[in-house]
Amino acid sequence: MEQNNKVEKDTQLVYGKNPVAELLKSGSGVDTVYLADTLPPQVAAYYTALAKQAGAVAKQVKSVKLKAMCGTESHQGVAAYASSIEYVSLNDLMEISKEKGEDPFFVLADGVEDPHNLGAIIRTAFLCGAHGIVIPKRGGAPITPIVLKASAGAAARLPVARVANIGETVRQLKKQNVFVYCADMGGAPLHKNNLTGPIALVMGSEGSGVSPLVKKLCDGVVSLSMAGQGTGVDSFNVSVAAGIILYEIMHQRTQNGQLQ
Amino acid sequence: MEQNNKVEKDTQLVYGKNPVAELLKSGSGVDTVYLADTLPPQVAAYYTALAKQAGAVAKQVKSVKLKAMCGTESHQGVAAYASSIEYVSLNDLMEISKEKGEDPFFVLADGVEDPHNLGAIIRTAFLCGAHGIVIPKRGGAPITPIVLKASAGAAARLPVARVANIGETVRQLKKQNVFVYCADMGGAPLHKNNLTGPIALVMGSEGSGVSPLVKKLCDGVVSLSMAGQGTGVDSFNVSVAAGIILYEIMHQRTQNGQLQ
Repeated sequence: MEQNNKVEKDTQLVYGKNPVAELLKSGSGVDTVYLADTLPPQVAAYYTALAKQAGAVAKQVKSVKLKAMCGTESHQGVAAYASSIEYVSLNDLMEISKEKGEDPFFVLADGVEDPHNLGAIIRTAFLCGAHGIVIPKRGGAPITPIVLKASAGAAARLPVARVANIGETVRQLKKQNVFVYCADMGGAPLHKNNLTGPIALVMGSEGSGVSPLVKKLCDGVVSLSMAGQGTGVDSFNVSVAAGIILYEIMHQRTQNGQLQ
Repeated sequence: MEQNNKVEKDTQLVYGKNPVAELLKSGSGVDTVYLADTLPPQVAAYYTALAKQAGAVAKQVKSVKLKAMCGTESHQGVAAYASSIEYVSLNDLMEISKEKGEDPFFVLADGVEDPHNLGAIIRTAFLCGAHGIVIPKRGGAPITPIVLKASAGAAARLPVARVANIGETVRQLKKQNVFVYCADMGGAPLHKNNLTGPIALVMGSEGSGVSPLVKKLCDGVVSLSMAGQGTGVDSFNVSVAAGIILYEIMHQRTQNGQLQ
């Protein structure tokens, strides 16, 4: 079944002070914000800070270059490319599962920062039959062109919800009888878990894992076994860990007759 | 048990035409070759080609900078940092397994080109209890500082053999009763394989997978199931695929009482 809930639009150039500020605050995926070298330093600093909060990079360019990019002089010294991804809501994700006649199966990225890792996780989630991915508006990579590329295009096919608060999303999912696991240390070994039924898997950030509050809210913790511990190499890469767990979820769901 | 077969040396600067040419031809991991801007173009082109073959990057620098790097004028316009990794032989890898009292467990990278992927595969191999990794002298990433970093340091702990020919390595392993699997399409689904006993897993390149000749030599082909096929997203990232399979190998070996 095709997933048509994601509308793919052409990448769109937005310019002018207010439009770019609104775009950055909206939580849309923006990769780069272009600032003319003629902007007053405090204005440039404001947009640089906004860009950083939105996970984008601010780049200074010559005013004439900005004019050429925008095709007009009325750019006010600021421009950005809006992402071609249209985010969906958590309810949309639940609806998609229902339409497919399958138990919900989602991945929540709790602060995954490296766009290559986020892209690889989305690619794996798609290939393992997940119905969507949830990312936070703050504190994690948005869907940028780098993420799209690293996902081998899956980020344009797998529905993505962008939420204000991953903890609140966990609460909402639990209310709707979705069993929420997080991947972290000190939990049950992967193969000891029953991973069938409505399920969501939370993957934490590269540096610090799943945030303590989110971990506390989860119904269960899945842990991966490791040989060679105590050697300084003490965790899997987050996209590899996601791959191992998501594949096991797909395996158990398939055994259970939930997928062909 | 600690793996002491890898000697960690300080990164060493090598300079002069012959030493650098020898270093590049030796198959040692070199990241960057520095060429003085005063070199005649055909000489620079020769070292650029050598560097490329060795998986290194050639970088032009000012002659005075090269003098400062080398601390001497006798650099002849060419310098390179030798890798801090000391490669071992295939026999060394077999010995390591024997010393551990475990069935051999190796990973063969058949042309994995992206240093981040190679690093992630080495990290996973180490954490799944593999005894070593085999990489080719040509046609794949050597162990560069980027690989070391992406491996979270595992590339300095897991013994690495660098061989002239992966196909020949497969033949030698089979002679010593190691069952060699490759990860590719059209094989048996992951969980249908008995992955216990002496085992080696071949992972292919990002673009074209395992080379046809190597695939033909393998005892078995392991395939990963995928949902959402026919959508253009039709393969896992190679480091994720390696993670899924290596974790299953560790699981089966553990069940079989080969590891604690």
